[in-house]
Amino acid sequence: MKQSNALVEKIFAAADAMNDEMVTRRRDLHKYAEPGWTEFRTAAMVAGELTKLGYAVEAGAAVVKKEAMMGVPSDERLAKEMERAVSEGADPQWVEKMAGGLTGVVGTMKCAGDGPVVALRFDMDALDLMETTDAGHEPLEKGFASVHDWGMHACGHDGHTTIGLAVAKILAELKEELKGTVKMIFQPAEEGVRGAYAMVEAGVVDDADYLLGAHIGMKLPRTGAIAARIYGMLATTKFDANFTGVPAHAGMAPEQGKNALLAAACAALNLHAISRHSGGTSRINVGKLIAGSGRNVIGDKALLQLETRGISTEVNEYVASEAQRIIKAAADMYGVTVDISRAGGAAGAENSPALADALTEHARELGIFSEIVEEPVDFGGSEDCSYFMQRVQNNGGQAAYLNIGAKLAAGHHDAHFTFDEAVLGLSVKVIATSAAGLLNGEIKA
Amino acid sequence: MKQSNALVEKIFAAADAMNDEMVTRRRDLHKYAEPGWTEFRTAAMVAGELTKLGYAVEAGAAVVKKEAMMGVPSDERLAKEMERAVSEGADPQWVEKMAGGLTGVVGTMKCAGDGPVVALRFDMDALDLMETTDAGHEPLEKGFASVHDWGMHACGHDGHTTIGLAVAKILAELKEELKGTVKMIFQPAEEGVRGAYAMVEAGVVDDADYLLGAHIGMKLPRTGAIAARIYGMLATTKFDANFTGVPAHAGMAPEQGKNALLAAACAALNLHAISRHSGGTSRINVGKLIAGSGRNVIGDKALLQLETRGISTEVNEYVASEAQRIIKAAADMYGVTVDISRAGGAAGAENSPALADALTEHARELGIFSEIVEEPVDFGGSEDCSYFMQRVQNNGGQAAYLNIGAKLAAGHHDAHFTFDEAVLGLSVKVIATSAAGLLNGEIKA
Amino acid sequence: MKQSNALVEKIFAAADAMNDEMVTRRRDLHKYAEPGWTEFRTAAMVAGELTKLGYAVEAGAAVVKKEAMMGVPSDERLAKEMERAVSEGADPQWVEKMAGGLTGVVGTMKCAGDGPVVALRFDMDALDLMETTDAGHEPLEKGFASVHDWGMHACGHDGHTTIGLAVAKILAELKEELKGTVKMIFQPAEEGVRGAYAMVEAGVVDDADYLLGAHIGMKLPRTGAIAARIYGMLATTKFDANFTGVPAHAGMAPEQGKNALLAAACAALNLHAISRHSGGTSRINVGKLIAGSGRNVIGDKALLQLETRGISTEVNEYVASEAQRIIKAAADMYGVTVDISRAGGAAGAENSPALADALTEHARELGIFSEIVEEPVDFGGSEDCSYFMQRVQNNGGQAAYLNIGAKLAAGHHDAHFTFDEAVLGLSVKVIATSAAGLLNGEIKA
Amino acid sequence: MKQSNALVEKIFAAADAMNDEMVTRRRDLHKYAEPGWTEFRTAAMVAGELTKLGYAVEAGAAVVKKEAMMGVPSDERLAKEMERAVSEGADPQWVEKMAGGLTGVVGTMKCAGDGPVVALRFDMDALDLMETTDAGHEPLEKGFASVHDWGMHACGHDGHTTIGLAVAKILAELKEELKGTVKMIFQPAEEGVRGAYAMVEAGVVDDADYLLGAHIGMKLPRTGAIAARIYGMLATTKFDANFTGVPAHAGMAPEQGKNALLAAACAALNLHAISRHSGGTSRINVGKLIAGSGRNVIGDKALLQLETRGISTEVNEYVASEAQRIIKAAADMYGVTVDISRAGGAAGAENSPALADALTEHARELGIFSEIVEEPVDFGGSEDCSYFMQRVQNNGGQAAYLNIGAKLAAGHHDAHFTFDEAVLGLSVKVIATSAAGLLNGEIKA
Repeated sequence: MKQSNALVEKIFAAADAMNDEMVTRRRDLHKYAEPGWTEFRTAAMVAGELTKLGYAVEAGAAVVKKEAMMGVPSDERLAKEMERAVSEGADPQWVEKMAGGLTGVVGTMKCAGDGPVVALRFDMDALDLMETTDAGHEPLEKGFASVHDWGMHACGHDGHTTIGLAVAKILAELKEELKGTVKMIFQPAEEGVRGAYAMVEAGVVDDADYLLGAHIGMKLPRTGAIAARIYGMLATTKFDANFTGVPAHAGMAPEQGKNALLAAACAALNLHAISRHSGGTSRINVGKLIAGSGRNVIGDKALLQLETRGISTEVNEYVASEAQRIIKAAADMYGVTVDISRAGGAAGAENSPALADALTEHARELGIFSEIVEEPVDFGGSEDCSYFMQRVQNNGGQAAYLNIGAKLAAGHHDAHFTFDEAVLGLSVKVIATSAAGLLNGEIKA
Repeated sequence: MKQSNALVEKIFAAADAMNDEMVTRRRDLHKYAEPGWTEFRTAAMVAGELTKLGYAVEAGAAVVKKEAMMGVPSDERLAKEMERAVSEGADPQWVEKMAGGLTGVVGTMKCAGDGPVVALRFDMDALDLMETTDAGHEPLEKGFASVHDWGMHACGHDGHTTIGLAVAKILAELKEELKGTVKMIFQPAEEGVRGAYAMVEAGVVDDADYLLGAHIGMKLPRTGAIAARIYGMLATTKFDANFTGVPAHAGMAPEQGKNALLAAACAALNLHAISRHSGGTSRINVGKLIAGSGRNVIGDKALLQLETRGISTEVNEYVASEAQRIIKAAADMYGVTVDISRAGGAAGAENSPALADALTEHARELGIFSEIVEEPVDFGGSEDCSYFMQRVQNNGGQAAYLNIGAKLAAGHHDAHFTFDEAVLGLSVKVIATSAAGLLNGEIKA
Repeated sequence: MKQSNALVEKIFAAADAMNDEMVTRRRDLHKYAEPGWTEFRTAAMVAGELTKLGYAVEAGAAVVKKEAMMGVPSDERLAKEMERAVSEGADPQWVEKMAGGLTGVVGTMKCAGDGPVVALRFDMDALDLMETTDAGHEPLEKGFASVHDWGMHACGHDGHTTIGLAVAKILAELKEELKGTVKMIFQPAEEGVRGAYAMVEAGVVDDADYLLGAHIGMKLPRTGAIAARIYGMLATTKFDANFTGVPAHAGMAPEQGKNALLAAACAALNLHAISRHSGGTSRINVGKLIAGSGRNVIGDKALLQLETRGISTEVNEYVASEAQRIIKAAADMYGVTVDISRAGGAAGAENSPALADALTEHARELGIFSEIVEEPVDFGGSEDCSYFMQRVQNNGGQAAYLNIGAKLAAGHHDAHFTFDEAVLGLSVKVIATSAAGLLNGEIKA
Repeated sequence: MKQSNALVEKIFAAADAMNDEMVTRRRDLHKYAEPGWTEFRTAAMVAGELTKLGYAVEAGAAVVKKEAMMGVPSDERLAKEMERAVSEGADPQWVEKMAGGLTGVVGTMKCAGDGPVVALRFDMDALDLMETTDAGHEPLEKGFASVHDWGMHACGHDGHTTIGLAVAKILAELKEELKGTVKMIFQPAEEGVRGAYAMVEAGVVDDADYLLGAHIGMKLPRTGAIAARIYGMLATTKFDANFTGVPAHAGMAPEQGKNALLAAACAALNLHAISRHSGGTSRINVGKLIAGSGRNVIGDKALLQLETRGISTEVNEYVASEAQRIIKAAADMYGVTVDISRAGGAAGAENSPALADALTEHARELGIFSEIVEEPVDFGGSEDCSYFMQRVQNNGGQAAYLNIGAKLAAGHHDAHFTFDEAVLGLSVKVIATSAAGLLNGEIKA
């Protein structure tokens, strides 16, 4: 059944009216880019805005489970970033709530009638990257390049946050014409797939019937394109392994050393030899190995940074479990100790088929996209939105992730990245109408 | 103090008189070569002869500690060899005593007066080797080549046994002119350093004040040469490691396998990477690696045969202990199990300095050697006579191992090996006079 | 368009009439099982039969390219097997033509009118396996168990050859009612995927418009089932790598050795660490590693047996090419030499979609199968029929491989394997009618 | 023959008179500590002083062969250090001569009569170490702690340089009473054994009949002790290996990467598996391994820092040559490139026996040492003075290295290191009298 045209038109008009506001907001976020778990200024702003719009807002420990956070910066760093955020205009009351890096925000709004719970998820963090200073880079030329030389929005999450707040505003304005409950979820630390798990574990989507997520520019570097049949989000686990041995003079008494460098080297080789899995795509990569000190000292310290992936949570669990055994055995092999910590993770996921079909059809009917991708799109990489999707799907709900095309100046994670801001309005329109359609039961899935 | 010339002359005369008998015996032993723990015919003959000579003779469990035997053939093999030995003329009563491969023999003789316990050790086993059939090979031409295509005396132990029995006979004849106690020790399974430990653990040299051992031809392939200042016998341990994993089809379900082949390969590499030791020479070698079955099956079985060595028992223990940890960790790394068994071992040893000096001087005084090696000789390899030496030395006694030169047809362990039988008489003379001198206190050390 | 019922009925009648003959033939072949490249008796019989049926028959070098043969037994073995085959009744003239193991046979028949070239491929070889002597094993009870304790038809190729000859006879009888050309291809050495390549390289399917192959019992251990939508035949390459180093005494002079054992161990580990491929499924397995000699000798010889696989020829080529580089580098790493030989190989393949659909429909229409598998079947393993399929498809033709269900006594390659002989008639019916339909243009693909 | 007492007394008196001057100089050098190849201030001062004393002085390219320098800092660093040295008082003319880090100095003095050429070698460089700021550290308390937080004299070379200049002064004052030629050699970059080779290759000791070197505090942390029978200086080579591969996304396209991280890990393991050598002590150590970048990127860069050692130059060459082959093969194994550079090296050396005996006797006769070590001292580590010793010995001359005892605050290379300045006078006395004795033929060796 088609969606009411009147509502769609109201949403389109509201989105068009907000265009300048969105550009301004996106540029402000870009300028004050905040990497994972330090999004104090961004999250405080989001919390403040949602409150103004009438949402019931929760932030900090209520929506981020501390024990489930991964890859968290040091306490010193967090304390410094809190001060920095306040000095850059963040509301100290919200920032205080987020102490310890608990920078997640959820705004909930009950609409006029009974209906489903529709959760929308947006990620807010920047990358640990220094933005280019090359001439011609638009953010530089227009004065909104990052003022933090340790952080840059090179993945479009400034856009995502902006879109999320605009959708929140439109839905709030249309509250009386909507049924059910809207949950606006703003997630920290998507980069390194560190943040979603802690919000899912805090239960923020346990009541959701539908969950929508989106990414701009991903796989579709063309403004006007959209794909809703996404599959192949790889499950992944990120590990850090710290080996500790005993140093010794390599000439005088080598036998007194316990060689952490060789333990790490041995682990690296054997990790890459983890067997393929008949259940489908798997991956293993040791991306960093830092070991030893002086040339004539038996290396007593070593760090491995690695990741596993799998087409399904099961396949990834196989690789991750093999990896942990191998790392421990490599430590034993050299008589050293090892501490393994999870630095990130994502589930394997794919869009719920019926919802994917319905959203593809819906996107076509909106008439604003120049390219509707019909073929299933293999996501290929990992995105921790998958944790939200998996939880909702496991609870019997449906979940989908949209790829919304955008022209890019350079690839994601490149210091020259920026995107065509026209994607902001298109995204707001498709997400807000989709949410409204699901709330009102006009989009059937 | 010089040794009594009269006694020396008697010994020389007796040895000369026995020459033909010794050649005959050596050739008989050569013909019926018996590898380690299967010396049923040889040992039964030795036990019979010693008994005839008046020694109190013990064989089997009394002089070989079953639990301390290493590298023992299967029960089936042993049973077959017992039958074979009897069919080749061995006394079934003695053979029965040695069931299970307990083929050690000790003959003890109390002499006329009080004096020290002097133990003489001889090894009896052949190698698992097929004797050459090349023309010109002396044993072949003279009709005493091994009739066992699975065994050959290519290390001269046929000579050692012959010498031991001749010395036993001479000392028995001179019993009234000697003081103290003579212990004639005939050891099985020196090859692979498997046999000494079990005799030492049975306590056969616990009462010895002196222990002499010898090897013909070793390092001195010249008849007429002799060296008594031997050091650098390397401590060694031999291990077999059997890995057991789980097979799986390498194409269909590789993840269901537990890869014993890779565990063994990983162990081999990391074993060779065991650190050098500042305490001196160490060695590690994986000499054999047999793993896997079909090309398309995850290898579920693997065997490693390895050895460690060290200049001292301590250094060897370091390497051996590292080796065991590494093997276990390699098994863990691939989720397989491993069974490690000791297949052999020798202690680190060197001749007691005073005894080495005295025997060097004694050899010179005998006037029968054309070359007395004054310089200390680095033995370089391993010999399990070291276990006897170590036990006697640890108990406060003295021990020495003699290298008695002999012209060789080919190197030790070569299928063309045989030695100049003139070494038999020279060896009997030096060993019998040395024993007599030590018993009578005329050789002071 | 449906096939002419009259022709189908003639074929069915002919097949039914041949039932006893087929059982007799299959049991004769089973009794004289001949492993790859030694199928002298089987191939000579095939050549004789095809000649009798009026086919133009070629065997030996004309249809098997010598340089492209893989995994060929030694000349001695081949000579012995030729003698054995003659002694078991093979026609010496045909056997002579196949000297050197060139045991492929092709029979060609021009039919009455113009039409396509339809090639049918059957494999003839047994496995290097000793047949079970367990009570209850049907071949044993009925007196047709293999008389060769080194060979057994445990994969059903005795059935395949029987089916091929029956189809040849039926098509020859119906020659006047058929158009185009029939090529009956009998291939040696499918086990180990060693034989197809040499026949393809000899050009035997270069003129084929259609190629059909089949396997009984594979994936469908139920008589009456059939699947024609097969995909996922993995490309594969089999390698043997022989390392040669220099032996040395591991205690006395380890530095003089060149360690082939460690080179092989190092190769094994690094081979398994070959990267996954984003193009799809890949596999690597070192299934056998035999290295070294004595425990105290630096291992100077080593053998690796390995295989690579890939979802496509390209992915397999990636793994195979990495494997060769790694093996060479491992040899360099230990200063040893290595000889790498190809021991087998297969292409990646899948059935031509239109032909697969047409054959599925055709099978249904025949009305003799109780289960028509509609879903695409992932073959999972490797089959060198793929080389024929790839060549025909690359030339613009179509190819398909059928899985024809059969009840089995035990899995393929198990010493207890045997199959329900009812599959023979079903197979002949579906293959002969398919061939006739393709020849006459009644089956459209 | 004993040395003339009169000359010895003059030398003692001169040394005693210089005591305050030496302390002042040592503290100045300590304060302006300059690590290897940046000793511009130190070397310029040495050159100036030697010139004042009447020596013919050469510095820079005349005494340091540019191509043979190892482990040289970047041009930028060297340029900066030249400026720094001048700003700290160095004579710009000398500094300019040493551009490029050629900071070696040689002063030559012809004495009154004919006689041998006696070369004395002193090293000048500090370590890349920050001096402790712990209370109680003498240099800190007395105001002469290093003003360079990147350099500290923690090995006593400040003392060595001071001693060298004092000896130079005394020998110049006694010139008329001496025969032959004195060569005062001041060497840069002993730490990391980087500097001696370039001076030896420049030929500075090609005409020397005797070469003396010394170290304070080494192995004898007791003022008043001295040892002249030194052996076991290990030959060593230091390598840096830089691997370069190709990065790729580890999830999306791992097969497109060339994995330098794994190449380095593989090299590290196999390097440690280099065989022991029957020629004596050998060592291998990979002390540092830095590889990779992001966790999800195939690591395209890797650095190994390693060293080999051997009891003799030959044994070290064996290990070093194996190491280079292994590193290259590891690169090949992963399809990456590698650049291996020598970062340092030393020869195997021991004191010429006759000279060692003569100097031991001489030291005793001087009557100023409380402990004369008679037993040969195993140096155990590496010192590039060995290159000078080897060259002189190979040319038929004699060379010796003295360990001169000194009480230490902490071990060598410890940030708390400092030494009892009483060693300065003792060292000057023994070295100056030894040189005089050798020049005048009164010390016979």
